[in-house]
Amino acid sequence: MTILKYSFEEYAEMVKQFHGSEAPGVLIGGFMVALAVENMKNNILYDAISETRTCLPDAIQLLTPCTIGNGWLKIFNYGRYAVTLYDKEHNLHEGVRVFIDTQKMKDWPEISAWFFKLRPRKDQKKEKIIDEIRRAGFSILSIEQVRIQPEVALKQNKGAIAVCPECMEAYPLADGDKCLSCQNSILYR
Amino acid sequence: MTILKYSFEEYAEMVKQFHGSEAPGVLIGGFMVALAVENMKNNILYDAISETRTCLPDAIQLLTPCTIGNGWLKIFNYGRYAVTLYDKEHNLHEGVRVFIDTQKMKDWPEISAWFFKLRPRKDQKKEKIIDEIRRAGFSILSIEQVRIQPEVALKQNKGAIAVCPECMEAYPLADGDKCLSCQNSILYR
Repeated sequence: MTILKYSFEEYAEMVKQFHGSEAPGVLIGGFMVALAVENMKNNILYDAISETRTCLPDAIQLLTPCTIGNGWLKIFNYGRYAVTLYDKEHNLHEGVRVFIDTQKMKDWPEISAWFFKLRPRKDQKKEKIIDEIRRAGFSILSIEQVRIQPEVALKQNKGAIAVCPECMEAYPLADGDKCLSCQNSILYR
Repeated sequence: MTILKYSFEEYAEMVKQFHGSEAPGVLIGGFMVALAVENMKNNILYDAISETRTCLPDAIQLLTPCTIGNGWLKIFNYGRYAVTLYDKEHNLHEGVRVFIDTQKMKDWPEISAWFFKLRPRKDQKKEKIIDEIRRAGFSILSIEQVRIQPEVALKQNKGAIAVCPECMEAYPLADGDKCLSCQNSILYR
């Protein structure tokens, strides 16, 4: 079972380099993204959506041209472990959505225990989870055809850039007469 | 002028591979992240904040251990081109914030024209912009010491995971009696 052009071990090594560890979520995410990519029509330019902020975005960034910084990957944090790839050029924005199928997962006790947090973390054996992920592969996933709402697929343009009179940094003028940070930042003390 | 352990050309090649093109924003972002990293105390475990969704997150993901999927990079989309690295282990959450200095940028006409969109895109010469970025390096940046609010630095825990009675997918129980997508998704038609 390969993850696009990579063996499971090659992909796991890429995950370790980029993500910092062989996180189960990014490993399963590899199979999810591979299944989605293989079910897109050839030569279609696509964007990606992750319905979670956790782990999955890194699988998408490793295996597709879509990154957070180039805007082709968007995160809608619905807390579901699902990836969607969709045609970004044509009006119907057709694509595929791949998700972890909780029914199919029942056959895999280690994956289930990790995913549903059935055991304290200290009682989970990472090697056992990874071994099940490798063997389960695509079998715990389901795929469906989807069409994306046009406003979601819209490319956002920041419009004119101005200098904020308060912090003197550049910001999108559409945000108001000063930047959003000077309006209401929660970051710094 | 190097970007951490990379020459400008090596870094530009990494950007091309990951981001899809030698985007000016990710190239400048390389100098920004390098300046921030070099001004953090040694052996401090840090998290990253990007104040923009555009380009800069990819420079952070390429040059630090922080990614969107591992949660060590967070985006607060204030529309300012600034990166912050902060100590995630100690209570004061001290760190550095590096931003593009609009005053210092005035010496660089091509960068200014691109950044403030002073010319139609078709009249911008990408090679000229990149050449100025390479020569300007760190000189268009400023750095400041910051302390991050404790609630921003807090590690979020999703808590218990349940199966949504409507879509049958897994979701964080804290989101309610069904998942956020079944409550109100704007994604699909």
